[in-house]
Amino acid sequence: MIIKREILITNDDGIGAKGLSALVEMARPYGNLTVVAPKEPQSGMSSAVTFSTPIRLFECKREEGVTYYVCSGTPVDCVKIGLNRIFHDRTPDLLLSGINHGSNSSAAVLYSGTLGAAAEAILYGIPSIGFSLATPHNPDADFNASIHYGRKILDQYFQNPPSREVYLNINIPDIPMEEIKGIRLARQGKGAWIKEFEKRIDPHGTPYYWLTGEFRNDEPDAPDSDCNLLGQKYISIVPHQVDTTHYAELKRLGEVWHL
Amino acid sequence: MIIKREILITNDDGIGAKGLSALVEMARPYGNLTVVAPKEPQSGMSSAVTFSTPIRLFECKREEGVTYYVCSGTPVDCVKIGLNRIFHDRTPDLLLSGINHGSNSSAAVLYSGTLGAAAEAILYGIPSIGFSLATPHNPDADFNASIHYGRKILDQYFQNPPSREVYLNINIPDIPMEEIKGIRLARQGKGAWIKEFEKRIDPHGTPYYWLTGEFRNDEPDAPDSDCNLLGQKYISIVPHQVDTTHYAELKRLGEVWHL
Repeated sequence: MIIKREILITNDDGIGAKGLSALVEMARPYGNLTVVAPKEPQSGMSSAVTFSTPIRLFECKREEGVTYYVCSGTPVDCVKIGLNRIFHDRTPDLLLSGINHGSNSSAAVLYSGTLGAAAEAILYGIPSIGFSLATPHNPDADFNASIHYGRKILDQYFQNPPSREVYLNINIPDIPMEEIKGIRLARQGKGAWIKEFEKRIDPHGTPYYWLTGEFRNDEPDAPDSDCNLLGQKYISIVPHQVDTTHYAELKRLGEVWHL
Repeated sequence: MIIKREILITNDDGIGAKGLSALVEMARPYGNLTVVAPKEPQSGMSSAVTFSTPIRLFECKREEGVTYYVCSGTPVDCVKIGLNRIFHDRTPDLLLSGINHGSNSSAAVLYSGTLGAAAEAILYGIPSIGFSLATPHNPDADFNASIHYGRKILDQYFQNPPSREVYLNINIPDIPMEEIKGIRLARQGKGAWIKEFEKRIDPHGTPYYWLTGEFRNDEPDAPDSDCNLLGQKYISIVPHQVDTTHYAELKRLGEVWHL
């Protein structure tokens, strides 16, 4: 039995990224695809939205089962304008975002445009998944393992869908397919970037800074953190939520604070 | 007894915003202040970081107990460069972000640069608070109630600090001080924006879109959601966390998925 779903696809590396083509290939057997991707790369844009400049949207390509639009905004703008202006009278069954050229595990989730788009879909009741390949931003990365394992995960996903509050964050190690040890459910690892700026001096003698840095893993021995599993050659799947209320502290502060 | 804390201050409305001056005034009795604020307004920038262009940082003003820097990047860039390049050999005791010209309750937390900065501090073990005045982006808003109640909350905060995992999101209704009914701990309300784009046609006949929209409150009767309390003339305080793993779904999917 073939179920034709309506699937909205976006990414943060832009309409021309190889990872976007790989995601289209992965998703093609599962439904009709509508791609709304940023015109320019939007890495590190998190859940940013565009207020101060107008947004452009153009249909740019149509092939069997796939329609492509390019949007001048951020990944979240792409989701918003896709839902408001392309789907408007119906709703996609799923949003897929990626495949990102680069890992999105641990604290990278905060900065990720790939996952910003996935979180956005959840606000509209649309299930969503972000895919990332843990390559050091190689534009010509090999996405074959991502496509293979991505379909394996999608099959499970459709058989046993997660709660509607949840978007999945899937990271794939950038190694040959036969070296991948398996797929593991995981939690978001704890860590942050340190030594983050490289200082340079411009030709006029004025300093400027490039954002760079190295990852500080705050729990290098945790068996269930996404970044650790990824380092151990597993594909990691983290279920994330939009509500970031810390309920335990809400209760505790209610008991100790006098407001 | 006067304890001199080191307090890092940023915002997303930019170095010239009245809300930033109000936050400096609020915080001045509590410690030495270092302001690192964006050069340009950065509303809606969420946790975005700047990878593709270099970042500039300049000291721009110094007064008794307050040093001001202006940064060309996003609110999160301001926090990162403040910690890496201004504090580097020590650590601030607290980060304060705001006072935002506009509400940051419910789903707005996802898009907020004010709260992106607050979340960023938590990654470095620095307690943090975001303040927002629920004005419709009035540049000349009245921050007197915010300063008054902000200090009341800071007094509680220092007496009984929240867990180190938590940043606080404080929203103040934009009404005369005497009409404010009180301060309430709250959870992040559920909702989203709908009808989000206004379509216009440029002089060349090509469409463009402005991001706008109206808020859809998904639980208008909830007694404990931040947006509802704000609408009822209360100041709302939500404790938020950086880890967005949905642990219940992590457990459940582990039981039902075959990976």
